[in-house]
Amino acid sequence: MKMAELSTVSAVAVATIKFYLRERLLPAGERTSPNQADYTEQHVRRLRLIRGLLDVGGLSVAEAHRVLDALDSEQPLQQIFGVAQAAVSEHIDPASVPASALARVDSVTDGWLVSPDNPGRLAAAQVIASLEAIGHLSARGWVERYAAAALLIAEADLDEIDAIPDREGKAETVVVGTVLGDALFSGLRRTAQEHVSALRYQPGSAAHHHPSLAESP
Amino acid sequence: MKMAELSTVSAVAVATIKFYLRERLLPAGERTSPNQADYTEQHVRRLRLIRGLLDVGGLSVAEAHRVLDALDSEQPLQQIFGVAQAAVSEHIDPASVPASALARVDSVTDGWLVSPDNPGRLAAAQVIASLEAIGHLSARGWVERYAAAALLIAEADLDEIDAIPDREGKAETVVVGTVLGDALFSGLRRTAQEHVSALRYQPGSAAHHHPSLAESP
Repeated sequence: MKMAELSTVSAVAVATIKFYLRERLLPAGERTSPNQADYTEQHVRRLRLIRGLLDVGGLSVAEAHRVLDALDSEQPLQQIFGVAQAAVSEHIDPASVPASALARVDSVTDGWLVSPDNPGRLAAAQVIASLEAIGHLSARGWVERYAAAALLIAEADLDEIDAIPDREGKAETVVVGTVLGDALFSGLRRTAQEHVSALRYQPGSAAHHHPSLAESP
Repeated sequence: MKMAELSTVSAVAVATIKFYLRERLLPAGERTSPNQADYTEQHVRRLRLIRGLLDVGGLSVAEAHRVLDALDSEQPLQQIFGVAQAAVSEHIDPASVPASALARVDSVTDGWLVSPDNPGRLAAAQVIASLEAIGHLSARGWVERYAAAALLIAEADLDEIDAIPDREGKAETVVVGTVLGDALFSGLRRTAQEHVSALRYQPGSAAHHHPSLAESP
């Protein structure tokens, strides 16, 4: 298909597609004349993926580039996981994280097969150091319950990847799940917080009922 | 204590403290002379909270302002939850979210007591719309498992709040947990992903062993 059709089918403006081509996020089409190229279903698919990574996942163009390069490489899935994780993680200098906070993360994740430079390990330790400084580091198992739920989510992620038959689909699922999974989870977490706090603080309040449960006034 | 001591005790530079005072994130000290004021333990505590919200939670000064104002108000805890949730959520125009994606979120959270404009409901729907567009919306229960884990996390959050005796401490826990909880969870999620993928793809690989489990070479 031509550029105009690619734009219509993908619902992405021509100027935006040209930007992605210039930035090499989107591979060039097959040139059919000096100023025309042919695009395929693969381009439509890739365009939608780029939109998801940039708009919903919040990646920068440079981060999306690294993630898509990993996707197109023949790297093993675990490496692609690493690249996707790094893209969605702020870089943290390990030296800036207090040893006591790292020790707390390691104790909560005791027995897990994790490399010391896992970006999530450092990020979790940074949060724990901050909670400790504020005087809000729970001794009541709050962090432990977060770790248990994180394990359930990781099992769900890996089951999803395992269920995809082809290697390319698996790799794409790794990237999509890593980048969009945080946003999905934090959205559902806020939804669940409203639900549980309504149950505890306002039992029977009609104002907080789920639309499908709302009774007539 | 004087400004210099406040800076030492809190490990926040004087210039930064002055900035927080100008931005009214930090309440003014009690004036003891035309160019000197006295600060208390309350100021130390508030300074650490501001650092956590801005540096680790990633809030803007304006967002931190709204959250701290809610904290200092006499609002019920549920309202403070709402303000904290709004501060950490991107504003999403409900009209921009496809009805089918909202329906999917509502079906996954069926029976939950949630208002239609909960920012997490809209954010989750936006992710689901994007997954659908990319062709990666799982029909294998991935979203449902995320919702179940989100409920566990919300229960942990509310148990933590319930365990704090005083109203001020509860309110602070709402804010801290809402703002820092996302970062803690996503960090632990990446740690768990590495663990579960190591278990599945590289059983027995020493390179991925937890430091405390590492065997001699």
